[in-house]
Amino acid sequence: MEKIKIGITHGYTNGVGYEVILKAFEEPTLLELCTPLVYGSPKLASYYRKALSLATNFTTIQRAEDAVADRLNIVECIQDEVKVELGQKTEEADKATTASIEAARRAYAEKQFDALVLAPGDKTPTDSGSTILLNERARVGLFTDGISLSEVSKHLTVEKMSKKLADFDLCLKRDFGISGPRIAVLALNPEPGEEEENIIKPVIEQAAEKHIFAMGPFAADTFFGSQAYTHYDGILAMYHDQGYIPFQVIPSDYNIIMHFEEDNEAVTIAQLNDAQLASAGKGEAEITSFCNAIYAATDVLRNRARYDEARRNPLPKLFHDKREDLRRSPKPEAQNAPDEEK
Amino acid sequence: MEKIKIGITHGYTNGVGYEVILKAFEEPTLLELCTPLVYGSPKLASYYRKALSLATNFTTIQRAEDAVADRLNIVECIQDEVKVELGQKTEEADKATTASIEAARRAYAEKQFDALVLAPGDKTPTDSGSTILLNERARVGLFTDGISLSEVSKHLTVEKMSKKLADFDLCLKRDFGISGPRIAVLALNPEPGEEEENIIKPVIEQAAEKHIFAMGPFAADTFFGSQAYTHYDGILAMYHDQGYIPFQVIPSDYNIIMHFEEDNEAVTIAQLNDAQLASAGKGEAEITSFCNAIYAATDVLRNRARYDEARRNPLPKLFHDKREDLRRSPKPEAQNAPDEEK
Repeated sequence: MEKIKIGITHGYTNGVGYEVILKAFEEPTLLELCTPLVYGSPKLASYYRKALSLATNFTTIQRAEDAVADRLNIVECIQDEVKVELGQKTEEADKATTASIEAARRAYAEKQFDALVLAPGDKTPTDSGSTILLNERARVGLFTDGISLSEVSKHLTVEKMSKKLADFDLCLKRDFGISGPRIAVLALNPEPGEEEENIIKPVIEQAAEKHIFAMGPFAADTFFGSQAYTHYDGILAMYHDQGYIPFQVIPSDYNIIMHFEEDNEAVTIAQLNDAQLASAGKGEAEITSFCNAIYAATDVLRNRARYDEARRNPLPKLFHDKREDLRRSPKPEAQNAPDEEK
Repeated sequence: MEKIKIGITHGYTNGVGYEVILKAFEEPTLLELCTPLVYGSPKLASYYRKALSLATNFTTIQRAEDAVADRLNIVECIQDEVKVELGQKTEEADKATTASIEAARRAYAEKQFDALVLAPGDKTPTDSGSTILLNERARVGLFTDGISLSEVSKHLTVEKMSKKLADFDLCLKRDFGISGPRIAVLALNPEPGEEEENIIKPVIEQAAEKHIFAMGPFAADTFFGSQAYTHYDGILAMYHDQGYIPFQVIPSDYNIIMHFEEDNEAVTIAQLNDAQLASAGKGEAEITSFCNAIYAATDVLRNRARYDEARRNPLPKLFHDKREDLRRSPKPEAQNAPDEEK
């Protein structure tokens, strides 16, 4: 199996992007997992390497196909000098930041690498595909995102909700390697109303017939405070703030945002951290979220390969029977099966 | 000054209500602050006192005016025997629970005590007045509550929002004793939209002219995770879940809900805890939220008395000038002035 290739953006060039990337790849751990391709500027990498006295080596390449395994590869997509003004918002930095994102997106569309990890501050799209917020304690899916609050209930139909729940279930199985995911669905309203009665409840009931373990709708106000969320493999929130607010407040070591493109295999991972201009050049930037974004990317790609491989297996009946048994006599151990990865 | 009288409901009679009340008043601390009047049943109080081996003494009275200072008073509003079935939902317990709430509300409407504190599980109304969620780290006001999510943006008008902001500001000053409260206003939408541009921003700007220190609108998704909320004396959330979700997840010793009746002085305080049926009779119930509800009630009543007294003072100009100075050269110490109470 070929080593997984991860495309990486360099973030706001006056921020902590290069610091985070260089620190993360200073030790060989991450390089054993994947071959990184940073879409950026070797000059900027050298500047930050020197300024922060980091020992990380890198290889400059012009095209993704030249990437060297076991090395941090910088795909040169910015030839011009870029002036670094630590912590400042400048036009030059704006341009260099956009150039990296655009080059990385283009290369990803051409399938030159397997997953895209964004530097702190770079954002995933919200207008297409689906988003999962991930930390070590929760996986939160969003039924809607990128729309105004007054639009949310208009989007809530049985068809859309059924599709989202099935997509989320498949994502937990295939991308996260969870065999019988338990999904909590949050309520839209603080008190059960029309949408809960006519849409969310029927969708959850219908999901059971399709062997999707969805429960709810749960009142969102108490769901996170009561720790109820820790009993589920996935939580489906109805709108942006309902998912993001608790996700950000739950104590966690890292917080990442995984974006799955609709109808294709692309996964883009961002961090909740902003570009951290105030910390630029100080050598204090945290790398936990970035490293976990890389881990999450490689996990997803491996889980998918394993899932798809298992379903190419000539003994499909065996899998089918086993799953049916679990459903008929659900044992807590079986339902709470940990990720196969761990 | 007469001692503050606090009416108290006994909660679900098969739950932890009497346990919490008897434990809280076992030590004389709370009795020094206020005279408690529990609307309930002396027989039930005796039952739980014995069952849990608690030493708390109480006095049975028939009418609120007979309340004895420095004693836990039980106003007998249930004469019948009430069978206790620990941890069970029963019709008898339902009835006894409602009887306590109704008797307490009736007595409060007749001003027989100064503030009403509800036992765990009893809820404040959401259809009138205004609510503040309080713990040791945040005071969260709600612009709307008790309505479905799709209705929220319809309620958002310049007039309603201005009034709510002014009410919240006055509440922080008069009820919480904060001299120049800094208020954070949350955005309705995850990305600034129509409501932010045409309603929330203009209201915040107009508030400044009325010497209300409001800031925002802040994107709610990052506001709590980033600890930004700790810099404000009050946070105004736009709808139920936007306020309740982070409030419940923020680590805190206690969580209480303060309800202020519109256009009168009534304050009712509930706890986020439910009736805790599963813990009934085990002697494990936490009393922190209940005790803090009593503290909050007495604080509000004292702060109000002090605020109103100061404004009856024949030297109003002095107050006025001092406040104007603070506004012209805002010093962090002045703006962050702690509650006068502490």
